[in-house]
Formats: sequence, structure tokens, C-alpha cells
Amino acid sequence: MSQRSSFYPELKRDIAPPHGKLGVLIPGLGAVATTLIAGVHLINKGLSQPYGSLTQMQRMRLGKRTSPRYALIKDVVPLADLNNLVFGGWDIFPENAYQTACHAGVLPREMLDQVKDQLETVRPWPAVFEQAYVRRLSGTNLKSGTTKKHLADMLIEDIEVFRQREGIQRAVMVWCGSTEVFTQPAPVHETIEAFEAGLKANAPEISPSMIYAYAAISAGVPFANGSPSLAVDIPALVEYAGQRHVPIAGKDFKTGQTFLKTVVAPGLKAKMLGLAGWFSTNILGNRDGEVLDDRGSFRTKEVSKGSVLEAIVQPELYPELYGQVFHKVRIEYYPPRGDAKEGWDNIDIFGWLGQPMQIKINFLCRDSILAAPVALDLALFLDLAQRAGLSGIQEWLSFYFKSPMSRADLKPEHDLFIQHLKLTNTLRILVGEEVLDHSGLDYYESSDAYRTGMGEA
Amino acid sequence: MSQRSSFYPELKRDIAPPHGKLGVLIPGLGAVATTLIAGVHLINKGLSQPYGSLTQMQRMRLGKRTSPRYALIKDVVPLADLNNLVFGGWDIFPENAYQTACHAGVLPREMLDQVKDQLETVRPWPAVFEQAYVRRLSGTNLKSGTTKKHLADMLIEDIEVFRQREGIQRAVMVWCGSTEVFTQPAPVHETIEAFEAGLKANAPEISPSMIYAYAAISAGVPFANGSPSLAVDIPALVEYAGQRHVPIAGKDFKTGQTFLKTVVAPGLKAKMLGLAGWFSTNILGNRDGEVLDDRGSFRTKEVSKGSVLEAIVQPELYPELYGQVFHKVRIEYYPPRGDAKEGWDNIDIFGWLGQPMQIKINFLCRDSILAAPVALDLALFLDLAQRAGLSGIQEWLSFYFKSPMSRADLKPEHDLFIQHLKLTNTLRILVGEEVLDHSGLDYYESSDAYRTGMGEA
Amino acid sequence: MSQRSSFYPELKRDIAPPHGKLGVLIPGLGAVATTLIAGVHLINKGLSQPYGSLTQMQRMRLGKRTSPRYALIKDVVPLADLNNLVFGGWDIFPENAYQTACHAGVLPREMLDQVKDQLETVRPWPAVFEQAYVRRLSGTNLKSGTTKKHLADMLIEDIEVFRQREGIQRAVMVWCGSTEVFTQPAPVHETIEAFEAGLKANAPEISPSMIYAYAAISAGVPFANGSPSLAVDIPALVEYAGQRHVPIAGKDFKTGQTFLKTVVAPGLKAKMLGLAGWFSTNILGNRDGEVLDDRGSFRTKEVSKGSVLEAIVQPELYPELYGQVFHKVRIEYYPPRGDAKEGWDNIDIFGWLGQPMQIKINFLCRDSILAAPVALDLALFLDLAQRAGLSGIQEWLSFYFKSPMSRADLKPEHDLFIQHLKLTNTLRILVGEEVLDHSGLDYYESSDAYRTGMGEA
Amino acid sequence: MSQRSSFYPELKRDIAPPHGKLGVLIPGLGAVATTLIAGVHLINKGLSQPYGSLTQMQRMRLGKRTSPRYALIKDVVPLADLNNLVFGGWDIFPENAYQTACHAGVLPREMLDQVKDQLETVRPWPAVFEQAYVRRLSGTNLKSGTTKKHLADMLIEDIEVFRQREGIQRAVMVWCGSTEVFTQPAPVHETIEAFEAGLKANAPEISPSMIYAYAAISAGVPFANGSPSLAVDIPALVEYAGQRHVPIAGKDFKTGQTFLKTVVAPGLKAKMLGLAGWFSTNILGNRDGEVLDDRGSFRTKEVSKGSVLEAIVQPELYPELYGQVFHKVRIEYYPPRGDAKEGWDNIDIFGWLGQPMQIKINFLCRDSILAAPVALDLALFLDLAQRAGLSGIQEWLSFYFKSPMSRADLKPEHDLFIQHLKLTNTLRILVGEEVLDHSGLDYYESSDAYRTGMGEA
Repeated sequence: MSQRSSFYPELKRDIAPPHGKLGVLIPGLGAVATTLIAGVHLINKGLSQPYGSLTQMQRMRLGKRTSPRYALIKDVVPLADLNNLVFGGWDIFPENAYQTACHAGVLPREMLDQVKDQLETVRPWPAVFEQAYVRRLSGTNLKSGTTKKHLADMLIEDIEVFRQREGIQRAVMVWCGSTEVFTQPAPVHETIEAFEAGLKANAPEISPSMIYAYAAISAGVPFANGSPSLAVDIPALVEYAGQRHVPIAGKDFKTGQTFLKTVVAPGLKAKMLGLAGWFSTNILGNRDGEVLDDRGSFRTKEVSKGSVLEAIVQPELYPELYGQVFHKVRIEYYPPRGDAKEGWDNIDIFGWLGQPMQIKINFLCRDSILAAPVALDLALFLDLAQRAGLSGIQEWLSFYFKSPMSRADLKPEHDLFIQHLKLTNTLRILVGEEVLDHSGLDYYESSDAYRTGMGEA
Repeated sequence: MSQRSSFYPELKRDIAPPHGKLGVLIPGLGAVATTLIAGVHLINKGLSQPYGSLTQMQRMRLGKRTSPRYALIKDVVPLADLNNLVFGGWDIFPENAYQTACHAGVLPREMLDQVKDQLETVRPWPAVFEQAYVRRLSGTNLKSGTTKKHLADMLIEDIEVFRQREGIQRAVMVWCGSTEVFTQPAPVHETIEAFEAGLKANAPEISPSMIYAYAAISAGVPFANGSPSLAVDIPALVEYAGQRHVPIAGKDFKTGQTFLKTVVAPGLKAKMLGLAGWFSTNILGNRDGEVLDDRGSFRTKEVSKGSVLEAIVQPELYPELYGQVFHKVRIEYYPPRGDAKEGWDNIDIFGWLGQPMQIKINFLCRDSILAAPVALDLALFLDLAQRAGLSGIQEWLSFYFKSPMSRADLKPEHDLFIQHLKLTNTLRILVGEEVLDHSGLDYYESSDAYRTGMGEA
Repeated sequence: MSQRSSFYPELKRDIAPPHGKLGVLIPGLGAVATTLIAGVHLINKGLSQPYGSLTQMQRMRLGKRTSPRYALIKDVVPLADLNNLVFGGWDIFPENAYQTACHAGVLPREMLDQVKDQLETVRPWPAVFEQAYVRRLSGTNLKSGTTKKHLADMLIEDIEVFRQREGIQRAVMVWCGSTEVFTQPAPVHETIEAFEAGLKANAPEISPSMIYAYAAISAGVPFANGSPSLAVDIPALVEYAGQRHVPIAGKDFKTGQTFLKTVVAPGLKAKMLGLAGWFSTNILGNRDGEVLDDRGSFRTKEVSKGSVLEAIVQPELYPELYGQVFHKVRIEYYPPRGDAKEGWDNIDIFGWLGQPMQIKINFLCRDSILAAPVALDLALFLDLAQRAGLSGIQEWLSFYFKSPMSRADLKPEHDLFIQHLKLTNTLRILVGEEVLDHSGLDYYESSDAYRTGMGEA
Repeated sequence: MSQRSSFYPELKRDIAPPHGKLGVLIPGLGAVATTLIAGVHLINKGLSQPYGSLTQMQRMRLGKRTSPRYALIKDVVPLADLNNLVFGGWDIFPENAYQTACHAGVLPREMLDQVKDQLETVRPWPAVFEQAYVRRLSGTNLKSGTTKKHLADMLIEDIEVFRQREGIQRAVMVWCGSTEVFTQPAPVHETIEAFEAGLKANAPEISPSMIYAYAAISAGVPFANGSPSLAVDIPALVEYAGQRHVPIAGKDFKTGQTFLKTVVAPGLKAKMLGLAGWFSTNILGNRDGEVLDDRGSFRTKEVSKGSVLEAIVQPELYPELYGQVFHKVRIEYYPPRGDAKEGWDNIDIFGWLGQPMQIKINFLCRDSILAAPVALDLALFLDLAQRAGLSGIQEWLSFYFKSPMSRADLKPEHDLFIQHLKLTNTLRILVGEEVLDHSGLDYYESSDAYRTGMGEA
């Protein structure tokens, strides 16, 4: 038997148990958020299963391949129970979660009616909003304050009131709002001092999503960013999260077309198949599509979706295979589809002797259906991270993001399978289990293998 | 810095250097084989690059992510040089490799003409063939012998003559012949004694591909099986390979539709997206398509392609997600396409709250273009394995196969990404490099991370 | 102005007005029939529109292009009103139309519930059935009789009872039952005398669908055949229909993939684009799919679907373009889809200088949704034909069929657009309107054109 | 037998025979033009067939269906012989047709080499060009003149020199140049007087394509416009063509995606299937794609492609079915594809009871391969029109165009099948043959039908 030891004992953690209620705070109580909330209540009533959620359904192998035990992730690490989640949030429209969910049309009305009471109690608090950042929307349920600092304080106050009213022990914040217009990092984003000065001076470079992220960290609440907007992904707030011992993660939920891209691209690269071009178009008709019909917001999304491919195929290492990839991403607002967005990818590859081949992928997906369990998992894993004493950027959650945040001197990982291994091996490490590297030679070449008569003499 | 040690020092090998010529022996000098041979010569002349080949182009990360070094696989492990390959083989048709390649129509004539001389020297030796195993083909370039034992001896003699004539040091055999009709393992396949008795008694259950495999092992030549026929995948020959210290691998090159299936299915499973059905159809018009138009041969292929999905999604662990997958695979002979086969997959998935979504994949691929570098890599890796003292089943090569062989008490791995990690980590182990597990928490939570100011305080 | 006269005054008809109720008799009260019945009631209640129905929605141009008037077909020819339809039918399962519709899952339950009362009153009469003709089904709601003649008489009796009970003035029969196994015409099908002798002698070549057709004609009821089974398409029954002055039409509703094929193939032919191959596969999961999973029934369908392409492209006229078309049609039972069948076509074409191009069509359709309005139109048009004094084969209804019936010495027309022109020009002729030939040169080259200053000087 | 007479004797023409050589003058000697020229020479040498050309390959039915005769169009109407065509043209690049064809990469080099001599003799004359109209291109082979009138005179001179040098009897001009930026008709386009004044005054609203059209008409040369630019489609030039007895036609060759759209949309409409949306995207990488990557040129193309659908489905007549169609067309420059452009259409339809269905069409086409025979047919038919004494707009050629020109008070026809019938029935009329209306009732209901025993008694 192998003498090897794939443990990281120094990284094992004492994790505080998930006692009491966990508040899930959501800026943007739209289609994704209400699909999440409806789903959690339906699951808690036994009316559905948590399909799509790793925290609830996925299993990890413990033990060797010859006598494996497959335990649920939630039995390996201590996660908050779905029955202990309490939802609250902000939106620029005043409708409650039931009304919004009906209007969004993601779930059948019969399904929503089964949790109507629970949904109706979720009424959005007035939102921090700035027209210049989301040009296609305008709402009425807004906060007003003389400075951005005041607005942040009002958010912190909302959280505190919610904590006390609902009797929650811990909270996490998951941004589910619209994509803001493309913004380049500015000096005001560099340090927490500059940022706080900017809040007071109403610096135009500070967007609403940054104000939410700042409020969350200030309140000791982990923050995940489901959109490609910068939000917490600026040096000032990364630094601030470290100071305040708050875990953060982002950005941009990896759901439909990009999810598949990060599945297929690693497959092509594993096979050393060259890539001449990749054309991706998307048609979608929900509010997300409407917002992205604006050039500024689309640019933010485009940058987020565009970087994925290059990061995976590494043209700097493989100039002959990936040095000339023509990658084009389009998002098209197409109302007939509503939330049922659809992607079409054309992939021009080449193999042995440069011979061309093509792959076309047509993904008839559902935006909010794919995003809801991602939001759920992030809420539960960020809460775990906080209880485990982790803080700052949680790169091990990059599995969930189109543009994963990472340490400034590290390249983020986009390959879905490496991301998945990173996530599960991190969970193993936290609880002191052996990590998996799938090498497996020991099954064939060790003395144990010999005894089964299958290895060498 | 982490105290961990992800090394398997006890599995490190002293690997004999790849001096001299390596004979590549191919039963079935058809489209795949001639595409491989033409390609190697074109690459050796600098007229193309070895796209699609891991042994030639892929790199592995050595060192930490903060200061990585990306070395070519062929610089990490000692592989035979492409200039040292010498090709030989058997076929039921007497045409030389140039004639066959022209007829196959895989590569443009201009390309073939650049290596015409080299291709013309490869003239197939008379083949061992049995009509009952491949009902759609009949050729004239055949061996005849009174018993299957005699036929095996004639193959061994061919190898020996080739060795001496070409002055080769080592050889490997890669089966590129047609798919034989579906066969269930029988008593004659159980032990090497029973098998050798069967050879002498002309047991009908012993197929030509088994005779080639037996001959290879007898001659100390590693054997890889590119078709789904049983060939070396019977207990008798696995046992024999162990006795003779010969590495073996199989079965069925993973190239087009199944390759993509083992890319996409792990992606869906990683995301815990449920699967209601998967329909795969293939249209192809080459000799492979013609052979598979026969029910018996199709059945062999169908079984090989069918097991992939279940093995990846593990319905026994995830009955709610994968317990009711309707998986159907069709292969359709469609002459207009020639070698340019095409797959269409319709995948019915479901996510959060059971909502259905669909993925359709249309793969316009090239059978022989995808298979040729697989055959090349297997030849080079099996030679490596032999020089490293490995023998018997090489499960770490399962990356290349639709139906990977494994120890009887282990489930083979079908997930392309796990297979890829298994392959690369095995190579690392053989040369004493640290294996990768992608956990990465140490970059954030170690004292080193602290010093960069990105981790916790 | 043109002197021409595109009228066929000798073919104009005095058409009896559609007074009173029209009975619609349906053998096979399954998914298609119940979708039709539910729809008619929903439309009559003003809850939906008759999408997909030419009789209800399509308009015809009357007058010249310069001053056109677009009248509804139903205002040009006198058709029975939807409010005057009364439905009855036979089935091997005893469930009423509401139960069957719920089980079929074609329409949402909320929709069905709006016409639940009307659907529940449609209870199928015991059916004439023979296991040998539909091997995958077996039901309990069956007639028994000593001879096929007795069975026919029982059907005639059912019709008579229905007529009196419901007070209907006229009736039509539309076969919506399953596809029977493939049958070649036999001597017993040649003359009405031989056929009637066969009925009495229980000739095995006489299938249930033929017995229904015979009963309909005997009762003076027009008959349409929605399946590819022979039914009324045998010389004996064509002759009989002529004798009894009964209009007949068939066979095999043209709905999904074949409908599109008869749209696209004429387009390619119009452009003189060559055709190398056409591969069509279908996945479907309803009872239809289950029945067609049987080889005998599939063969019947295959022949019906296969002849379409050749008839359109006319290889005898265009050997260079269409002399080598490899046409393959597959139907695959795939339960995850239910009634939502899906077609995938790959079309290999070639153009200028023989250069190849490809068209792929993926049709996510709904079997019963497409078939229901076809059945409705046929019922109404056959009733019109009878009132107009037409009888025998109604070739002008070939628009609705995959295998249109025609005079023995004429080739049936498969091009959807010619079929459509045939249908609308026939309607014009019946009421004495000018036919359209779309030539239009008179708008440019007549003295009238000259006066507008647009034509020649 | 029917008494009817479907003849238009007053429109029959005495057509001058096509003696001598026909000059084919092409502004824009790029991929389309050189593919056309190479093809004509290859066909004349017997090395290929004129696939895709109606004038060369299509047949028309003469006589009744019971005793049909299928004659080639070119045997029914007198067309110029391919051996009598002489090509000349203008381009902003000085390369000869062989060089341009090699660079375009549409045809394999081996094919081009077979007609290298013929191609090399076609050297483009300096072009009339204006950067503001095609912003992405700039060439060196340009005419310069002080006014646009001078430029027009130089073109007329080119034609005259060509006529004499080559000894041609007649000529036609077919615009194959790039798409100009979107232009709205202005006062200078209203009358020929205003236009000629504008030529002298260098009116910026007069584009190069208009100057070519003016020159052609002035020289008595028929003009066809293969691009969506206005060119001859302005009142001034339509009037001028009438005055000068010159036939004209346009605009925008109907080739790939739009061709299929005008095939599929009429099919949906014939079936009364509703349309919720139609999304069309195109990826292409040739010079055409490059030019259309400019917003101004794209706008011209977008308008041309966009109007097609509405014109076919007639929302004004069918508001319930087609009143809310969301139609979006995208063209994406994607260099990996070169001339092998590809369209993807997603079509959202609805049928009976409003139930939604989807059609997706993926067309892997070849731009120049589809356009070349269109250009050929237009050249030959315009020459026919001129010899038949037709002049002005030739609406009967609308089959070939995305935006057919028509009399100002008539709606152009976009339905490919009506266009095709219009074309063939016009040819019948010109030579005095009976037109076809496909009604066919006379085969069943006339006394003749009775005698065959198939009609009514």
C-alpha cells in the first residue's frame, strides 16, 4: 500500500456549528431571487428536490476506490439547514416576491401558489440605485440620501433591523441585481481610505453595487456578487474584507452558455485540439436581456464572458493551437423568449494535420433556474467560510463564477473541472480528509495490487 | 508555506531511455492508420504540427502557481522521438499505405503526395481474418493456417522479420482494424491455459483481434486496442500480459461523439443538473460505417458507447437526478459523408425545481483525424510504460478509450477530466514530481498568503 | 388590360348550404382527436383562436393586385360552422375524451378544465381492432363479431345511432388511429366485389382501417385517412366511393418533419441546388412513438415518409442533381419527450461547380398540435366536397397528406406550395372565381401599365 | 375536357434570336464574379455542370399531367449560349481574375488552374469609387474625373471599347460590388433631369452604383443589381430605363439565409402557423463580411433582409398570427469562415391553441457558390428581356432578389414559390405556352376523368 499522505493538516479548521437562523440578504429581488426563495420553501415543504445545488445533493468519495463511501457534502461539512434560512432584500420595484415571481414567469403559477404566503412576506426594502449605472431601468422604491455614505449607513441599518426582527444569528449577502455599466477601476477604488472618502464626497465612480458590498462588510456579512459589475472586486473592498475578517466571492454567476464553454473548452484543450474561432450568441427576453440591450451594461457582460476562453486555453503556452482564436460573444434581446434564454455556439476547431472540424451547441436553458441554486450554494458556503475563520477572497468558490476573483498575483482558474476539484478538495482539507488527485497508479503497482494478481510480478 | 507532501516516492521509476527505433505494428492499415503514418512523416519533414497529440504538444505545470514552469510532457518523461518510429502492419486488402490513404479521402491528395515515397513502402502483410467476425468486409490479402495457433505463430514471425529487417529495438502494437461482432466472454477466455488450448482447437470464440493480442504479448510487444472488440480484454490475456511483463490498454478509441459526451456529462454532474434523456445519433460514410451497418458489429459498438454515460453520472448515488436516464445511441451508415462523420446529440436535462432544459450538440468531426493522434500517443505511452517496468492493464491511459480496461474490482473512470488528471499525475509520479490536486487554499490561508496581504490577518 | 380569362366556368358548382349539425366521427380517440375536440370547444367559447386552420383563418386574394380584397376562405366557400360540429368516435381504451386528454399531456390541465364537461360527454364506442395490425397496443373496449362484415355493420349501426341521437344532418369520418403494420395490396383489395367477399370470409388482408373506411362509404360518409395505413387507398374502396358518390382523401397527416421537408425540398429544386443526401431522424415519446417502435408499423410510416422527397425532386428529369440522393428516415421512440416530438434533418446539398453545402434543421414540434387543425380542415372540406357534388379521391386536399392519393395514372403532388395553390385554386373554381397563376406580366406590359408610366414606352 | 384557356396571347412576343457574343459587364470583380467566370469556362470545357442555374438546367412542364413533356427552359425560350459569353469588369484592386479567385479561396486551386488562361485575361478596368460609400475598403485601381458626369462618360467609353475589341453584339451589366452605406432617396434621385444635373454638380447623394447604372442605361445595356445599395432603384433611373427601352432588375442577390427564409416563411403561412419571433444570425469572413462590419453598410443590408418576412406573412391581414413578430437579423464578421458563411435561425412559432414550437435552421453555405449562378441567370434573362422588347423593371425576376423592385403601386412578392411561378409562367407567356395554375380539378371532374372511371358517375 502507498506510503503517501495527501493531507494538509495545517489547514484543517475548527468550524463553528451552524446554529440558529441564517439571513440571506439579496440586493435585486427579481427573477433569480424569487426563484431561489420559492424553491427553498417548496423544498422545505417536501414539494421538490434541490436539483442543481451541490450543497444539498452532491456527494464526495471518502475512502479508497476499492471500498468507497460516498457522503453528501452537507454531511461532510457543517452547513446551515435550508429550514433555517430567512430571506430579505432590496429592489427598485415595490412588489413583493410573489408578485415579482408571477410577473417573471419563470415558474408555473401552480407552483408559486403553493408557497404564496411565504413569498408575500418578502417585501423589498427601498433600494440604493443610480440611473447612470443601469440606464434601461427606473423604479420608485428608492432610498434617498445626501451622500453615498448615508446610503451605506441606511443599508447597514436595514440589516440590523432585519437581524433583530427575524432573530437571525448570521447573515450573508448575495447580489442578484442588474449589470451596471462598464467601469474601469479608479483611484477611489484603490484603498479603503480613499473609498470611504469617496463615499462621503459622492464620488461618481462608486456604483450602487459597491455601496452594498461596503455595507455588507461593515456589518460583518459575507458578500457574493452574481453580476459582472465590479462591486466587491476592487482593491479597497478586498482589503477591507481582510481587515474585517469577512469572506467575499465573485463575480458573475456562471450559468448557461459560459458554463458550457468552461466545460467544452477544457475538453478541447485536454485533447490538444486547436481552436480557430468561437462564436457565441445568446437570445434572451427577460429584464436581464433588456438591461444588456444597453451598450454600457453589455460591455461589462462582454468583458466577463470574453476572458473565460483565453484563460482556459492559455495561448501563451500554446501559440500554435490557441494563438489565433477569434472569439466573439453576442447577447441579443429577444422578447419572445422571456426567461428561457438560448445560446448558440459555433466552434471551429482543428486536429491532426490542421484539418478543420466544427462543433455547434444549442443550449435551451433557463436563466433563473440555473442561477438560483448557485445563489443558494454561495450563501451556504460563504457562511461556512465565515464559521471556519476564512476571510477575504474565496477562490475555491470560483466554480460558481464567470470571472472568478483571485489573489492579484494569481491567475484565476476558469476550467470548470479544476474549479470543481478545487472546491471539493478545499472542503476535504477544511475537515481534515485526504484530498483526491486521481492518480491511481498505486492500485496497480503497489504490493496490494500485486496480491490481487493484476499488477506486475 | 504548506507542510504537505503530495509525492509518491515509492512509485517513482527508473525509466530506460528510448534509444533506437520503435516499431509501430498496426493490424488494420486503413483510414486511421494511414492518416497516422502520413502525419508522422509530414511532421518529421516540418510540414505540419502534431495537433491533437498530448505526447507532442501538451505541457504540465511544474512548480507553484506563483512561479509556474510549463514543460512539455515529452520533456518531463522520456518518450520515443517521432523520427525513430517505423511503421508496419496487416490488412485484408493488399494496397500500400499511399493507395489506401488516397482511397480513404481523409487527407487532401497534395498532402499525401508530399510523403508518397514513405507511404508506398508500407505494404500490408497478409492478415488474420474471419468472415464471421466482420460480415460486411471481404478481402484477399489473408493468411491461411490449419489452426489459430498457427496463425498466431505467423504473426509472431512477421514481427520478428520486421524487427530484424528494420533494425528496431522495441515495438508496440495498436489495433486499428474493424469492429468485430458482439461476443460474450466464454470459458475459453478465462485462463491462458484454456486460451492456448482453444487456439490449437480452433475455438470459434477466439476472434482475430484476440489472436493479434496474443501474438503481441508472446513477442513482448505492448498492445492497445482501438476498437470495441474484446481483443486483449479477456481474463486469459490480462493474466498473460502480467506474466510476460507486457503493458496493455483498451478499448475503443474515444474520438468524436463519445469524447464530447465524456466532456459534457461530467459538467452536468458537477453542477448537479438532472438528466431525463440523452439521444445520440451519428452519420458516417466510411468503411467503419459500412461495417457498423451490420447488426452484430453495431451491437459491439453500442455496448461500448452506452456504458459511458451511466458510469459517469452514477445513478446508484443520485437516483433523483440520474435514476431515469433514457439513453439511446444510434449509428447510421450515410455514404455522402465519407470519413467526415457527424454526431447530433439531444440532451434533456432538468434543474432547480425540476424545470426542463435542453442541450443539442452537433459535431461535424473527422473520424480518422481524431483517431490518428490517439493511436500515436498510445504507441508512445505504452512504450514508455514498458521501459518504466509497468505491465498489465494501464488504467492511467483510460483517457484515450470509450471502454477503459481496469482491475476487475475497480470501476473504470469515464469522466474525461478525471482521466486527464489521472494521466498527468501518473506521469508526475513516474518521474518523482509532485502531483496536482488543485486545492489551492494554501495560497490564501498560509503564512505566505498573509505576507502578501491577501489572506486573513 | 389583359384580355385573358382564367376561369373554369364548366367546373363551377352549386353548393348546398351547410345547414344543421355536422357529425365528426373519429376512429382513434387519442391525443390528436382529443386535442381537436378540446380546441373546437375552446374556440367556440372564445377562449382561443383556430391557429393552424386554413378553413378558419386563411384569406384568399380576390381582385387584381392593384385593388385586392382578401377574403377569408370560409367567406368564399360555404363551410360548416364550428358551432355545428358534434364529435363521436371509437377507441380500444374506454376512457372519455377528458381522461384521455389529461393522460396525453398535450394541453395544460387548466385549458382542458375549461371544456371538461364537453370532453367528458365524448365516450368512445367499442373499436374494431386486430392485434396483428398494431402489435404494441392492446385495449379492452373492443367489438367482437364473427366476421369482418359483421364488424362493419356494427360500425354503420354506431353511425346511425349517433345521427339520430344527436340530430345531425351530415357526417364525415377522419381516421386518427394508430399506424397499422406494412401491407402490400392483395387481390382482395382489387374490386369491391372481392372486398365484400373478403369481409364475409374474414380475409386477413383486410385491416381494421379498411373496415372503417368501408363502413363510412356505405353510410354515405366522406372518409379521410390521417395515418399511413392503406385504409381507403385500395382500388376496391376508391371504386366503391365513386359508386356511392362519397368523397375520400388520404393518407397520413403531413405535420412535422415531413411538412418541413415538403417546404425545403421544393426550395432547393426551384434553385436547382443538387442533393447528395438527406438524413432525417425523429425522437418522440407518445403512443405514436410506441407503436412505431414496432418494425411492421415503422415500415408503413417509413414508406410514407420516404416517397416524398423523390416525388418532389424528380430524379428522372434531373439525374445530375437528384439521381444519387441518399435518403434515410429514422423514427426513434424516446419517452422523455412525450408528445413534443423533435426532428433533426441533415441535408447535404451542392451548388455551382459541385461545391458542397449543408443545411441542418431542428424542429421542436408538437405532434397533436400540428395534426388537430389538419383533421379539422379535412372534416370541413370533405363536407364541402360532398355538398358540392364531388366524389372519389379529392386530390386537391393533398396539401394535408404525406402520401396524397391520386388518380392511378397521375403522379401525386408533394410540393407543399403546388399543393397549396391546387387547394386554393380549386376553391376558386368551385365558386366561379378567377384562378391565380401569379404571372403578372400584364401589370407591366399592358396598356394599363403604360398609362401608369411604369411600363415600356 | 376543360374549355378553359389559360393563355395570354396579347402578351406573346416575337423574340430576336441571340446571335453573336454577349458581353457580361461586372462592376466588382471579386469573389462572386470570379467564381462565375471560372465556372462558365469550366462548364464550357465540359469539366463541370451548371448546378444552381435555372437557365441551364431547369425544365418546365409542357402539356397535361397525363402526357407531360419536360423541356429545358433554355429550349423553351431563346437564351444566349454560355459559349458566347465574354466577361469584362471594373474593380478597385488591379489583380486579374485568376489572382483574385486564388485569393478569395472559394474554389480549389486545381479547379482554377484548369481555366487559368481564361481568367488571367480578365483584367479589371479602373473603378468608379467613393470612400464615403464603402468605408472599410480602399483600392488603387480607380478612375478620377472632375465630375460624376465625367466618371459616367468614362464607364460608357469602357463599354464601347470592350464592345469593339471583343466584337460583341449585346451586353448586360450585373453589379457584384460591395454594399454601399445606407442612403435615403433624395430629390436628386426623383427625375432624370435632376439626376443628370446632380451628376454634373457632383451631388454627394449620387453613389458609385448609381453612376454605373446610369452608364449602363445610357449605353442601352440592361442592368441588374446584386447588392442592396439603391443603384438603379431610384425613380430617376427607373424612368430613364423606360425611356431608353432598357430592362432593369434588382436588388440584392437572394442566396443563403434569406433564400431559406423565403422558403420557410411561406410554408408556415400556408399552414397558418403563427410567428412570435424570428432571430437570424450570420457568421461570415470574406470581404463582404468585412464591409458589412461597418454600421452604414450593415444598415443597408439589414433593411434589405428585414423587409422580407413582413412582406410574406402579411401582418395586416393576419394580426392574430403575425401581428407581433419580433424579427431580428444580425451579420457578424467572423474571419475563420472565409467565404463559407453560415446562418443560424431560431424561429418561434405557435399552432393550435397557441401552443409554442421552435424551428432552428443551421445553413452552412457558400456565399459565392450560391451567388454565381444567380448572376449568370440574370445576365441571360435580362438579355432575353431586351430581345423580347421588354423594358423597365422586370418584376418577373424577383425570384433572384432579397428586395425585388416593383411598380410603385404594387407590393413586391417575396414568397420564393410565387416568385418561381411568376418567373416560369412569364416565360410561358412570352412564347405563347399555356400558363400553369395547378388547379387540377379537371382531371377528376371533367368528362375525361369520368371515362377513366376515377371521377363521379
